[in-house]
Parts: sequence; structure tokens; C-alpha cells
Amino acid sequence: MCYHPTGRFLSCPCKLELTGGSSPHLVDSNRQSSVVSDPTSIKAAAARVTEQLGGSGLNLLINNAAIAKVSTLAAETRENMMEVYETNVVGPMMVSQAFTPLIKKAAQESPQKGMSCSKAAIINLSSEGGSITNVLLFESGQVVNYRCSKAALNMLTKCQSLAYAEDKILCVAMHPGWVQTDMGGAMAKLKVDQSVHDILNTISKLSEKDTGTFVNWEGKPVPW
Amino acid sequence: MCYHPTGRFLSCPCKLELTGGSSPHLVDSNRQSSVVSDPTSIKAAAARVTEQLGGSGLNLLINNAAIAKVSTLAAETRENMMEVYETNVVGPMMVSQAFTPLIKKAAQESPQKGMSCSKAAIINLSSEGGSITNVLLFESGQVVNYRCSKAALNMLTKCQSLAYAEDKILCVAMHPGWVQTDMGGAMAKLKVDQSVHDILNTISKLSEKDTGTFVNWEGKPVPW
Repeated sequence: MCYHPTGRFLSCPCKLELTGGSSPHLVDSNRQSSVVSDPTSIKAAAARVTEQLGGSGLNLLINNAAIAKVSTLAAETRENMMEVYETNVVGPMMVSQAFTPLIKKAAQESPQKGMSCSKAAIINLSSEGGSITNVLLFESGQVVNYRCSKAALNMLTKCQSLAYAEDKILCVAMHPGWVQTDMGGAMAKLKVDQSVHDILNTISKLSEKDTGTFVNWEGKPVPW
Repeated sequence: MCYHPTGRFLSCPCKLELTGGSSPHLVDSNRQSSVVSDPTSIKAAAARVTEQLGGSGLNLLINNAAIAKVSTLAAETRENMMEVYETNVVGPMMVSQAFTPLIKKAAQESPQKGMSCSKAAIINLSSEGGSITNVLLFESGQVVNYRCSKAALNMLTKCQSLAYAEDKILCVAMHPGWVQTDMGGAMAKLKVDQSVHDILNTISKLSEKDTGTFVNWEGKPVPW
């Protein structure tokens, strides 16, 4: 999703309310799996957003796209593992690389001190299923391809937080809850509206102390 | 590495002293990166070991092979990420799948209670560089391809420990230290002999309470 300086809403179905910034610019990389890790597609998206921003920086990048392949450990395949890793980890890494110049620009131009999502941030949508400590719902689905990818995405987030600390870019991994999406299914505990509402509320409160951490939709810490 | 029931030493340059078992059988998957994730090569290795064991089970599998590509986060590539993941995560997963029938057999045939490496175990050589909490030596080398792969390998280890708990197969991720290997370089703190000595000592002491954990060469816990 992108916010234009004038407040024009570019491509997101939900409006993100951010406090502390008068003109937040953000982008949601929620694309098809075939696109999110395609360098040509990513470059084109960055060029389009750059044009739409008209010289301004980008305040917030949300890497939301992810896939999972139903499987057991015994039946897990090389193909599942590679495809899911490419979409869930390599995709967000490349999207972040492409948008980092715009995010750095936003950080440099911001009058705000410290870090926030209305200044300059990368939010990677992870999962408590990728918490090595908690391995949420393992008994319901082993899906090793997905769990390994999300643990790796959490590491990517930590690396981003360290690499971009000097640039004052906030980097956080977020567990959105078990949500009634295509992936979460009808048994999931949270409705989409509730999860999105809480995520936006949590995002608006993140600050420098949160960079490099893993939190859930309500802002509660999740162990790695 | 493999131990034959008669104590015959099959392919490993170092002898692993294990307590509590009279005839430990183990295998070291330390192969070329082009081989460790090649299904044909893995099947051939499993067939060869099965033949050499002459009807016995396999007590210990050590997944040791790994690669890393020198890089920064800004310059990290899709190709690096995919190749390193395939070797460091998908390889150990497929090797473990191929040898699990032999390891289960060893567990079933063992008179020992609980878990141990002289009964039935998978040890995945990980790295504190893959600890999301510690990100060891990040300032010396960002190598995101390697760090993400090791965090994912840690998740694989945790999944293996849960999936094989009923079979009484011990599954542990181990940080060998910063060792003077080709990967570790001459600046590394530990000599190969010292690391191997300590790893073998630690392995011999692992028990059921350790399954699903991450420990270093001295047996000290490493946070995920």
C-alpha cells in the first residue's frame, strides 16, 4: 500500500492510521508468489512507486506475501522447500532491497527522532508457526517448508534491523495471529478485520526499542 | 561416519567415543554441496550404509556439510540464498529422511531407555551465526544467506525432535564454535582438534532432556 503526500490512497484496501506523521508513504508487497521474487517485477514496482511518490521517500514497507505447502516431515520435498523459501524469504529480501533507497530517503527527510512506522520502517509478516521455541500448531500441521521459511524470515528481519540501525529504519517481524484467510482456514480464531485492526494499532505504536524484535498482532513479544 | 557392529571403522577420519552403547553405528553426511542435496546420491549413500550395517540399525547421523557465500545484506542475491538453503537445509532434511528408517531400527533394537547418541540420534551442525538472538559476528560478516539457512536448519531440528519424539530419536542442533576450517579462517578461535574433541565429548553426554535444543561444542545452550 502507498500513501501519497497529499493523502491519496494508491493501492491498498485498508487505510493505515499512523500517528506522529503528517504524510506517511507506505507500500504493501502483497503480490502473487510468481511475482514477489521476480527481480523484473520488483524493479518495475519500485519504479512505479518512485514515480507516484514524486520525489518523496517511502515511510513504510509491509512484506505480506507468503505461501505454504501442506506436508509432513516424512513427505516433505525439495521442491516444496525451495519454492516456499523463495517466496517467503528471498522475495521479501529482494523487495526490501529495491525499496530501501526510498525508505532511507524518508528517514533522512523526517523531522522525527528515533524510529517509527510513520518515519521509516520494514514490517515482515512472519508467523508464530516459525517460532522455533513455540512451533505453533505443529500437531495440526507439520508444514516444515513453511516453518523453516518463517524462521529464516525472522533472521532476515534481525539482519535488516542491524544493517539499517544507523539509518533509523525500524525493522520488525510480526505474527498476525491465526486468521481466517485462505491459508488460515475457517477454523482460525481471528477474523481478518480483527487481525488487521489490531496490527495497524500495534504498528502505529512501534518505536526504536522494538526494532529487531518479533511481536504478535497485539504487540506482545513472540520468542524466536 | 559409520561404525560397524564389529567396531570396523568405515569412512570417518576421527573416532567417536560413545558411552552406554556396545556397538554404535553412525554416519556423517559431510559431502560436496552438489551431492548432499542430490536425491540420487543420497539414496545411493543410504543403500551403501544399509548394506554395510548388515541388518543392524544406524545409531547416529551427523549432518555436517554446509556452505556460505560472502556477502552484505545490500548485495545479497537470489542465487546465493537459494544455493545455500538447498545445501544447508534441504540437504540435511533429505539425508535425514533417507536414513530415518535405519535410525528408527536402531532405536527399536536398543535396550537403552530414554534417548542418547549411542541409541538413535540426528545431530545437525548449525552455527551461533544462525542464532537470531545472538547473530554471532554480524559486524565481521553479514552473510545473510548463511544466517537465514542456519536459522531454518534450527527449525528443521526442532521439527525433527517433535516428529521423532515417540520413536525416541534424539535431535539436536549444535554450534561447533568458530573453528579454523576453510569456512572459519585462520582468525578463528578454536583449532579443529579442540572443537572435534569437545563436540564428541558433548555428544556422548546428550540425553532425552536435550532433544529439540541448540547447544555449543561444550554443551552450553545457545538461544534460538
